Amino acid sequence: MKVYMDNAATTQLDKRVFSEMKPYFFNKYGNASSLHSFGLEARKAIENVRGKVAKIINAEKDEIYFTSGGTESDNLALRGIAYANKSKGNHIITSAIEHHAILHTCQELEKEGFEVTYLPVTNEGTLKLSDLKKAITSKTILVSIMHANNEIGTIQPVEEIGKVCKAKKIYFHTDAVQTVGKIKIDVKKMNLDSLSASAHKFYGPNGVGFLYVKKGVNIKPISSGGGHEKGLRSGTENVPGIIGLGKALEICSKEMKKESARDKKMRDKLIRGVLKISNSWLNGSKTERLAGNTNFGFDFIEGEALIMKLDMKGIAASTGSACSTQSLSPSHVLIGLGLGHVKCHGSLRLTLGRFNSEKEVNYVLKVLPKIVKELRDMSPLGKGMDLSAYEKDFVGKGHKH
Amino acid sequence: MKVYMDNAATTQLDKRVFSEMKPYFFNKYGNASSLHSFGLEARKAIENVRGKVAKIINAEKDEIYFTSGGTESDNLALRGIAYANKSKGNHIITSAIEHHAILHTCQELEKEGFEVTYLPVTNEGTLKLSDLKKAITSKTILVSIMHANNEIGTIQPVEEIGKVCKAKKIYFHTDAVQTVGKIKIDVKKMNLDSLSASAHKFYGPNGVGFLYVKKGVNIKPISSGGGHEKGLRSGTENVPGIIGLGKALEICSKEMKKESARDKKMRDKLIRGVLKISNSWLNGSKTERLAGNTNFGFDFIEGEALIMKLDMKGIAASTGSACSTQSLSPSHVLIGLGLGHVKCHGSLRLTLGRFNSEKEVNYVLKVLPKIVKELRDMSPLGKGMDLSAYEKDFVGKGHKH
Repeated sequence: MKVYMDNAATTQLDKRVFSEMKPYFFNKYGNASSLHSFGLEARKAIENVRGKVAKIINAEKDEIYFTSGGTESDNLALRGIAYANKSKGNHIITSAIEHHAILHTCQELEKEGFEVTYLPVTNEGTLKLSDLKKAITSKTILVSIMHANNEIGTIQPVEEIGKVCKAKKIYFHTDAVQTVGKIKIDVKKMNLDSLSASAHKFYGPNGVGFLYVKKGVNIKPISSGGGHEKGLRSGTENVPGIIGLGKALEICSKEMKKESARDKKMRDKLIRGVLKISNSWLNGSKTERLAGNTNFGFDFIEGEALIMKLDMKGIAASTGSACSTQSLSPSHVLIGLGLGHVKCHGSLRLTLGRFNSEKEVNYVLKVLPKIVKELRDMSPLGKGMDLSAYEKDFVGKGHKH
Repeated sequence: MKVYMDNAATTQLDKRVFSEMKPYFFNKYGNASSLHSFGLEARKAIENVRGKVAKIINAEKDEIYFTSGGTESDNLALRGIAYANKSKGNHIITSAIEHHAILHTCQELEKEGFEVTYLPVTNEGTLKLSDLKKAITSKTILVSIMHANNEIGTIQPVEEIGKVCKAKKIYFHTDAVQTVGKIKIDVKKMNLDSLSASAHKFYGPNGVGFLYVKKGVNIKPISSGGGHEKGLRSGTENVPGIIGLGKALEICSKEMKKESARDKKMRDKLIRGVLKISNSWLNGSKTERLAGNTNFGFDFIEGEALIMKLDMKGIAASTGSACSTQSLSPSHVLIGLGLGHVKCHGSLRLTLGRFNSEKEVNYVLKVLPKIVKELRDMSPLGKGMDLSAYEKDFVGKGHKH
């Protein structure tokens, strides 16, 4: 049995999306900037998607800019707004548990003279509005807080954050890569100035995303060329990719209610089942949580070993973000929750989506407890070694939960 | 009859390329950074392409970085090398007829304190080595000269330019978007430090390209995130796109000789036929020219009108680069050849490729002379108005050719 439960890393392309893209590979292959009918056909198609995307997130058509994905969108928003507003101030506020596309970009901006405040979060991963309010100074030009976390699924109070920023006239960006297509987005209600999204996270193709930028926001391009996307993002338009993004978002938007309920049901069954394992816990919030996200901790075992064993049983899972799993350092998100380093190492993320079934959840619940037991039996820690002593070797705070 | 002769703007995806990509949309959809078997399968596949691409251009595997296309590759090379070598010098040399991804990036770098020399070209569009040598100063850190021009098809003496740069220990970048897959590339023989390519120009998919960067070249990333592509280009890998790029380049490499001969034959027939029209000429070089490129000038008519009329007859053509056709300013490339503004406006680019046939060439040769005559009959200029007087209203030099 093959069970793919790493939908937060990437989703399988929906066949309906593929069908929509196909003609743009073969018959409608014009460069959208060409003046002949092949070009005009491509142009019309991508402008149609632009309008569709705008409508779905309650934006205007000319507030949508297509990019190569979430990382580019985040870089363009952060760098673009920071550079354009340097004269107004050099302070940026973000959270300690953002995606690396945000965190590392903030670190780069620090090297260039910007000051960045990395706000802490609660042990469920939630940002406290009081912390945000306290951090704002007269030099603050931008707040960047993700809509939902990619590892633990915690959803931030984006609407409230937006209100705070609006009142203080500070730009507010949200990395919504994990929520677009999953949670209803209303950029006006959320008081957003910019928002990043990536198609391959919502059953669309790889290599394409978009950035919403509210009209009037002062933003500079970070690359240059033929002046595509109204000069903000040069480069020949990825026509089939954009078509795929549009169709994928349309499907998600139409089926969101049903899909979210279905994911939640599977998620909750998975959580109930997994937490029957002794010395296990759920990372993240119980209530403000992505419908498809689970993130468990297990004492006495290594997440990597767990992933390998699950893989051998046909189950694709991860310890944290795909973007950093190839590094051996513990997840900055789990560290951000106050978990000690040892506890961070035993984490398992199982993320559900459109193509998972309850049968698959049952299979995982059958296989996982056995693997955990096997690994604990092999581990000296599992055999009763004092965890607190071991913990001292690391920087972690030995947080209780 | 539908005739697509705008292959320099974008090419149709080869069906063999599509077949190779398809499994990566559906079955092998893992995130290449994930540790489970879906991820490892994707990782293996893109590393396989990396090796294949490297071999084809005589580079090492770890010198190939996948990007979203030519514009991103050019930006990364120019900005990345400029920023990383600021302490060594602030002077960059390029040519007046580069693609906007290079020219506009150079202009941005000028705003940031770099000095840029824009070398002139001959009236055939060729860079003179003596001009390059004269322009080099002790502060020169980078030379960027395109391999072949996208509008007029003129091929630059890249190997000789490389030698000059190597002797002076100056980095040499080439925008090879028009030549990769068409002309044999040997990065070692050409003494290249970096090279940009885009898959959709050689029958691969949109939204994916690569940058070759020679080992040891001092280059900084221009965006940040999960640290993909050895930290130089973050963002989830576009797996199907990269697979398509690899297959497309492989096909081009295998069929290059045959294909180039076929394109040349069609091109020369087209040139011979079109030049029978009175007051017409060929822009660019007769000998150092891309196999599929033609670029004609016609006195007394507007290129845009020509494109529209051809389109009505089913022929897709362009006046110049797709990236700037939506602007009404005359081509900087034709201006660079010394053509006056009026003469620049009457240009027509017909670019041939894999899916064109001699039958299509014959059709164009049947249709085009009639359209030119029609337009001239409508134009006051065509009825014998003195062109030189008209020319005076513009900045152009009224170059004779």
